[in-house]
Amino acid sequence: MEQVKIGIAGLGALGELHIKNICEHVPEAKVTAVCDIRQDRVNEICGRYDIRSGYTKFEDLVADGEVEAVMIVTNVAAHKDQCIQAAKAGKHIFCEKPLAKTVEECHAIEEAVENNKGKIFTIGYMRRSDPAYAAAMERVRSGAIGDVFMYRGISLDPASVLPHHIEGVRAGRYAPFFYEMGIHDADLALWFLNADIESVSSVGGAYVEQELARYQDYDNAVSIGRFQNGSIFSIQVGRSHNSSHVQAEIIGTKGTIRINNVPNVSRLEFFDPDGYRQPLEQTFLDRWGDAYVCEVRNWAGRILGKDTPVVRVSDGAKSLRIADMMQKAFVEKRTVYVGEMAE
Amino acid sequence: MEQVKIGIAGLGALGELHIKNICEHVPEAKVTAVCDIRQDRVNEICGRYDIRSGYTKFEDLVADGEVEAVMIVTNVAAHKDQCIQAAKAGKHIFCEKPLAKTVEECHAIEEAVENNKGKIFTIGYMRRSDPAYAAAMERVRSGAIGDVFMYRGISLDPASVLPHHIEGVRAGRYAPFFYEMGIHDADLALWFLNADIESVSSVGGAYVEQELARYQDYDNAVSIGRFQNGSIFSIQVGRSHNSSHVQAEIIGTKGTIRINNVPNVSRLEFFDPDGYRQPLEQTFLDRWGDAYVCEVRNWAGRILGKDTPVVRVSDGAKSLRIADMMQKAFVEKRTVYVGEMAE
Amino acid sequence: MEQVKIGIAGLGALGELHIKNICEHVPEAKVTAVCDIRQDRVNEICGRYDIRSGYTKFEDLVADGEVEAVMIVTNVAAHKDQCIQAAKAGKHIFCEKPLAKTVEECHAIEEAVENNKGKIFTIGYMRRSDPAYAAAMERVRSGAIGDVFMYRGISLDPASVLPHHIEGVRAGRYAPFFYEMGIHDADLALWFLNADIESVSSVGGAYVEQELARYQDYDNAVSIGRFQNGSIFSIQVGRSHNSSHVQAEIIGTKGTIRINNVPNVSRLEFFDPDGYRQPLEQTFLDRWGDAYVCEVRNWAGRILGKDTPVVRVSDGAKSLRIADMMQKAFVEKRTVYVGEMAE
Amino acid sequence: MEQVKIGIAGLGALGELHIKNICEHVPEAKVTAVCDIRQDRVNEICGRYDIRSGYTKFEDLVADGEVEAVMIVTNVAAHKDQCIQAAKAGKHIFCEKPLAKTVEECHAIEEAVENNKGKIFTIGYMRRSDPAYAAAMERVRSGAIGDVFMYRGISLDPASVLPHHIEGVRAGRYAPFFYEMGIHDADLALWFLNADIESVSSVGGAYVEQELARYQDYDNAVSIGRFQNGSIFSIQVGRSHNSSHVQAEIIGTKGTIRINNVPNVSRLEFFDPDGYRQPLEQTFLDRWGDAYVCEVRNWAGRILGKDTPVVRVSDGAKSLRIADMMQKAFVEKRTVYVGEMAE
Repeated sequence: MEQVKIGIAGLGALGELHIKNICEHVPEAKVTAVCDIRQDRVNEICGRYDIRSGYTKFEDLVADGEVEAVMIVTNVAAHKDQCIQAAKAGKHIFCEKPLAKTVEECHAIEEAVENNKGKIFTIGYMRRSDPAYAAAMERVRSGAIGDVFMYRGISLDPASVLPHHIEGVRAGRYAPFFYEMGIHDADLALWFLNADIESVSSVGGAYVEQELARYQDYDNAVSIGRFQNGSIFSIQVGRSHNSSHVQAEIIGTKGTIRINNVPNVSRLEFFDPDGYRQPLEQTFLDRWGDAYVCEVRNWAGRILGKDTPVVRVSDGAKSLRIADMMQKAFVEKRTVYVGEMAE
Repeated sequence: MEQVKIGIAGLGALGELHIKNICEHVPEAKVTAVCDIRQDRVNEICGRYDIRSGYTKFEDLVADGEVEAVMIVTNVAAHKDQCIQAAKAGKHIFCEKPLAKTVEECHAIEEAVENNKGKIFTIGYMRRSDPAYAAAMERVRSGAIGDVFMYRGISLDPASVLPHHIEGVRAGRYAPFFYEMGIHDADLALWFLNADIESVSSVGGAYVEQELARYQDYDNAVSIGRFQNGSIFSIQVGRSHNSSHVQAEIIGTKGTIRINNVPNVSRLEFFDPDGYRQPLEQTFLDRWGDAYVCEVRNWAGRILGKDTPVVRVSDGAKSLRIADMMQKAFVEKRTVYVGEMAE
Repeated sequence: MEQVKIGIAGLGALGELHIKNICEHVPEAKVTAVCDIRQDRVNEICGRYDIRSGYTKFEDLVADGEVEAVMIVTNVAAHKDQCIQAAKAGKHIFCEKPLAKTVEECHAIEEAVENNKGKIFTIGYMRRSDPAYAAAMERVRSGAIGDVFMYRGISLDPASVLPHHIEGVRAGRYAPFFYEMGIHDADLALWFLNADIESVSSVGGAYVEQELARYQDYDNAVSIGRFQNGSIFSIQVGRSHNSSHVQAEIIGTKGTIRINNVPNVSRLEFFDPDGYRQPLEQTFLDRWGDAYVCEVRNWAGRILGKDTPVVRVSDGAKSLRIADMMQKAFVEKRTVYVGEMAE
Repeated sequence: MEQVKIGIAGLGALGELHIKNICEHVPEAKVTAVCDIRQDRVNEICGRYDIRSGYTKFEDLVADGEVEAVMIVTNVAAHKDQCIQAAKAGKHIFCEKPLAKTVEECHAIEEAVENNKGKIFTIGYMRRSDPAYAAAMERVRSGAIGDVFMYRGISLDPASVLPHHIEGVRAGRYAPFFYEMGIHDADLALWFLNADIESVSSVGGAYVEQELARYQDYDNAVSIGRFQNGSIFSIQVGRSHNSSHVQAEIIGTKGTIRINNVPNVSRLEFFDPDGYRQPLEQTFLDRWGDAYVCEVRNWAGRILGKDTPVVRVSDGAKSLRIADMMQKAFVEKRTVYVGEMAE
């Protein structure tokens, strides 16, 4: 079987997850090179997964002639330069979300990618590749629910990861939660409603971890928005739930699709003294394990000439724009219009 | 509004429940007399519910000319004589389940009731009057699930009432559980499958309360049976569950109806540290509160000339026959055939 | 049993429902008089329910010395004057929602009611009396979910009633949907979060019935709001759903309560060729039948000296204020602050 | 990564599924040889999956020195001889269920396997490897539900495959349904209850496809059984359901585990005009896709020295014995005892 030869930049937990997934579950691809600024981490990963080439400089990864496709799993601050370098080197590119720090950077990436003719680009919005969301989109496209006019998303992290989050926020590693989590739903709203944003309002607070307020962050918040075609969204994010819980509704003129109403982690249910109980997903991997595989298979499949779906480079700016507006609306306690945002 | 004047015999907890229900929720009826062998209980109830006449002898209740209809909520040992007396006195009759101690006694009641022309008789199989079961029967009759060939019932009591049960069993107040609980499902199997029994097999044991074994009783058991028209049933009973839980399936050639798959006690669900949880019905009243009202409204409505459903006197013998066979099959550890049963 | 003697004004469908409920399910009360501007309707209802006195003028109802308590089920335009008259006459009062047309009118009612010492007043926010919401509040008060910081409500009418709605809107009988439906959720947000409103934003549209746009109305919309104590809400309303569907979540720092996640109309579930299916509530009575009884029992019970819950008169203005803000925010496409609203 | 070199005998649909799974999802193994009596099928599969060696005789597969482990996916009539040959050749063995045609044959296999020291044997009871059943067993072993005393299994095929089934039955390719389907539940009952069978009773019929009756087969049936330690089971099988539906309950003295109560095929739910609907699993692969991968990974993992679970060779005879008793009880319409069965 033909295999895409992949070089991966960024060997954090998510970078390693992609490597493990490709080794075990992506017959369409093979990791032939990795890159990280930490030499020992490079050595460790190359040994663990039997990878031929290890680099500490992104330039070297891109210069590796065997590498056909690059996965960028580095800090968001590095995305712009790395995407542009990889595009200039004629590589296929997979870039983790968010695409960049600013909409302006996104546009720079777009330009480079558009000049990299014939190469396949995608963004790591893995929810689109999740079997449930993919099936929902198929149903929407079949016309079964009429014209779609509303997207409602709920994205909650378990309270168990809140201490880790707050550390990341303190260290400046994490942006406020609309950027970290809400941006996934912003992307899905764009995907399902296929429209351009007009205005956004937000409310929320730091109810459980009050220190978040110092960083214009929040542990629970909700935004509503209106697109230029009149369709609307509601996006709720939270960091203090009793489980990982990502739910969505796609609402049309003839019906509604609900996704993951109860995030049960298995097909088990217990009759216990306390009632009837379904154990829930505890980590994002409980929910997205498959999706992380599917998104890479979709990208690699497209590179190999199949008709699998990928995320357009222009969608990176659009979803980031909505995240910017959700955040600004939260901070300024008012409706924010797209016209006020810098281009 | 015209009201049926009712006399109630037997002022145990269930007798009082019927009185309270009639006072608060049955506009079609009025309790005008009660009867119990305990004079103080008669006084207490007459005072509490403002009831005109109280008796300590069933004869006197039946002789009360104002009483049009008699509810027999006494010990099963008394049912035969009381039903016959009430029938001879020309009263409408509601008799609690089981109809009598033996099939032979049931037949004696049948004869008396058949001679009591124009009067309405029913048995307290309240599940048939429960909105869910009534709606299921309506769906079955509509043909929506094709020809019905199987009934599957599960009737579980919470472990919390097991100590009370075992006391009743020791005192001889309770028959083995197929008689107390399984007989409801036997009646429903007969109702949905509309057939005559052919054979029954049972297995079970005293797993939680081993003392039950001394009384040829069990805390968990399951029976299967075959009707003469080829249709079948499976009936599971238990006394050690974490909730009250009565579930059923009606299976037809074109579809299946499930009733009360999760016996949630409310429309509430909790996201707790332990998962997603529905609080469950804890007592039989959580489940059957409405059904106890509906069965009396159905009976009184029929007396007043409406077309509400009642249970035929002949169904009393039929369901008791199945309970006899379930018990005999359990004790003798073999399939029991109707031909072996005494007529 | 002691019974509160009730006079009911307004014999539309809801007025008659209250009468029927009281006759059949409210042992604590008795309807002794009714009033409607249509003499024939008065006659019809008095005959059907065997009611002693019928009037065509509210003054006469209030002057009826036998009437202890008045239920106002008339058009909202009449509420203010009728509440004040009834209060001056020393009656207990039950007023349907919304309490009045404007916050100013609500304050006038408040004043009259406060001067009507010792008499019990309530507003027909029946959801608070629904067993599920009442149980949710009990759980909240027990501290089981920590500090409550968010209320999320969804209130959807089935598309089947949309033609009736649009007629009512054309005729000016119905206000925009935040007033008709969203106000219930506004009241519940106030009840659970126990706070004063600060700001509201809304989005929505007339996606299914575009004519609604002419009336500054919408068939689907969603509002978010912030209270002065920092807590928040999200309220979604719709008129084009496939069922009646009223769902809520109460979110606290330690857990979440979900109410009526699936508005199944019974305990039945079907295995059909199309999948596993629960038939849903088709009309508001499928959902609120019990609640309409409970709210009257609670009010009558309080009149008789029990500790049953009623709605404070001041809550009428508070929920109407939020509805005003939801509507204004929708029309003006911006966040609306309480400071801008006329007192 | 070290990989087990596997030879697969039997290139029907299930044989090919195993090959595809190993290629794509079992990094621990590699298919190096296949065998089927049809030369063209051998060529087709070798080409499609890039497999080195193809044989038309099982002897040749076993003689292939590169093959370390043999998967027997042939007709059950061939299992005994092939297992014995493979065992004599010192291969690790994976044999599809049922292990053999008769309990006697199973014992012959057992003997050969026991003499094949140090090699790993397993039976294709894939349900044990399904994540849900594996998690249930883990919970049982943790003691969370107390002492387990009952297993309840329901295994239903969709009516859509009934025409295919009846063809197979006519052609003698399919045994009655207790052998094809019920045997899985028999194995699970043995696994969870860890006991030896004592007696079995069955009822059922050919309600939808009456021709099945000619073959002592049935489209719906249910068996109950008792183990020698007193624990019990209930196993329902059917071929006329509206979906593929395999459900189970493990019942203990302290709690109950339910598996796959609703066999929803995805995390999607629809609000449709007909109600709230979950699309269901339509084929056995919708349900067991993962389990077929896991069972091979478990077996290969064990060969590579990991502590993954496999099925003991002796379990093949035990589950077949129960299937024999379920069938005999059905045909003879009576309880069948283990003592009557030939050894």
